[in-house]
Amino acid sequence: MTAPANFNPKAFRDALSTFTTGVTIITTRAEDGSPIGITANSFNSVSLEPPLVLWSLAKSAYSLPAFSHSGHWNVHVLSVEQEALSGRFASRGEDKFGGLELDEGINEIPLLPSCTARFQCRTAFMYEGGDHVIFVGEVLDFDRSALPPLAFQSGQYALTARKPREGVRLSQSEQVAPDCSYTEDLLGYLAGRAHFQLVAYLRTLLQNQKLDEHAFFVLSVLSIQDRLTKAEINRLVAYTGHEVTLALLQSLQEQGYLVTDSQPGEPRYQLTPAGREASLEHIALAKAVEQEVAEKLGPGDIQALKILLKRLITATDPGVPDLWATDNARS
Amino acid sequence: MTAPANFNPKAFRDALSTFTTGVTIITTRAEDGSPIGITANSFNSVSLEPPLVLWSLAKSAYSLPAFSHSGHWNVHVLSVEQEALSGRFASRGEDKFGGLELDEGINEIPLLPSCTARFQCRTAFMYEGGDHVIFVGEVLDFDRSALPPLAFQSGQYALTARKPREGVRLSQSEQVAPDCSYTEDLLGYLAGRAHFQLVAYLRTLLQNQKLDEHAFFVLSVLSIQDRLTKAEINRLVAYTGHEVTLALLQSLQEQGYLVTDSQPGEPRYQLTPAGREASLEHIALAKAVEQEVAEKLGPGDIQALKILLKRLITATDPGVPDLWATDNARS
Repeated sequence: MTAPANFNPKAFRDALSTFTTGVTIITTRAEDGSPIGITANSFNSVSLEPPLVLWSLAKSAYSLPAFSHSGHWNVHVLSVEQEALSGRFASRGEDKFGGLELDEGINEIPLLPSCTARFQCRTAFMYEGGDHVIFVGEVLDFDRSALPPLAFQSGQYALTARKPREGVRLSQSEQVAPDCSYTEDLLGYLAGRAHFQLVAYLRTLLQNQKLDEHAFFVLSVLSIQDRLTKAEINRLVAYTGHEVTLALLQSLQEQGYLVTDSQPGEPRYQLTPAGREASLEHIALAKAVEQEVAEKLGPGDIQALKILLKRLITATDPGVPDLWATDNARS
Repeated sequence: MTAPANFNPKAFRDALSTFTTGVTIITTRAEDGSPIGITANSFNSVSLEPPLVLWSLAKSAYSLPAFSHSGHWNVHVLSVEQEALSGRFASRGEDKFGGLELDEGINEIPLLPSCTARFQCRTAFMYEGGDHVIFVGEVLDFDRSALPPLAFQSGQYALTARKPREGVRLSQSEQVAPDCSYTEDLLGYLAGRAHFQLVAYLRTLLQNQKLDEHAFFVLSVLSIQDRLTKAEINRLVAYTGHEVTLALLQSLQEQGYLVTDSQPGEPRYQLTPAGREASLEHIALAKAVEQEVAEKLGPGDIQALKILLKRLITATDPGVPDLWATDNARS
């Protein structure tokens, strides 16, 4: 049995990698007792009764003798927080277990903490699999956490955006006028509606504080970078399409949210304690709303959404200055 | 070998299902020549040289004799567009192949079109796997498309949000002031910035048309639902937090974008041909921007983003009326 002559190994690997997987670290102990661990995405479930799982290990792997002899190994389904750990166990030579606290398992096989799920196994079968050995393990014990799992697709780490069974349609209308190309699938509509609905939660608070959206942006910017001139504030909020006027800044001063410094030259604005307090209330409310959304979407999905929004922002960035860069606004 | 007494089968299945997978349909032919196909997510790669893949089939499966005897089967890694097909092949009894056009493969095994990747295999090994049989196949031929793959996690279909190697940070600043809780990870900031950056693309067009954002919302609403009163328009755009004034509507009339009908009672507004043309230009530009973003993020990721935005919108919906519902605005 040999590879067909027309097989391009890279094309074959690329085709295989379109199959999405989770990411696992599989651990065992070498005959001398030293801990062994590798990153693998060839894991899958096999049987419920008896409980069996499998994964494949390259015959050329440095760890093959250890896994073959030990007869026991632990599979760790990694969480989204463990991407760095995945990279560490995917590379060779490093002291992979250095600094890691281990949990106590049913035996001496290393059991890593803070995973999405863990399966403590003993080898049930080792099967021939070409340039790999297929390990089939009986699951002796398992546990899971609520941590969202890390995924891997086409050579990149990924998070999943799940599609609930109840569907993801906004409009209940089956019929859209055939000549109407403005649909609920328009990205601009979705981003706008998401933004406005999130802002709506702030509106009552802003009204109580006698602030409008523009004032909110000013206070937000000054909560991150203090002592900015009007021009610097405008440079940082320009992406909203609204200009901060001197009248707005003066009104915020009169309301006791801002003060200017007493240095000569152009006035620099900073938050008063009341201004900082108002801004903290905005952030606390925004975080409470986000928490509510996270509970509805799930912690992995909310992280996936943030990743995708950041990639969208990067893809459409007209050159917005870095709000968090030290002294950036003054450059 | 039996399941440990303390194993809760549902808890075990739930723990296993945290491992993300793609979704495949695997096909073969029964001895009588009839096509056979099942949905499976137990697929994985095994070996590159020789090229081997594997999957597991329940010993109780109706299709086991066909797969055992045929010696050949095709694995189809499903695309996000094939969720319905996955459901069809996961259920039993139906005429699964009814109405399906098949592609021509290297043999008579059914080869389904429009997949993300396909592997045409012959059985290399069949291994004991508890209540399942593990099929290991030699890949005789394969192909792939650019279609984004469907994923499955914790019992739900999913799309992936990939994390490019270059990372997804917006700010280059490593240091965030420790007392500053307003970070680039705040969902409200990300949704707002995404919205404003997408709107920024429209701004030049709107300026050329002598329109502002509020006018843009009015024209958008009327491009979907025509002949609305001022109150009905306001009901549909209320989620943006801006009120449409009579002055705005009159100005749009003077600019030739709107007319009112001549019926008695409250005036109903509709787009003139110029108004419809202006709105079509907005939509065309929004679609062009979306296309540009999709090319940067990838077609699967943009769909994942839309799914997540829709779920965010549903999770935060204060009761926004259905813009696409027929006669909705008049109810």
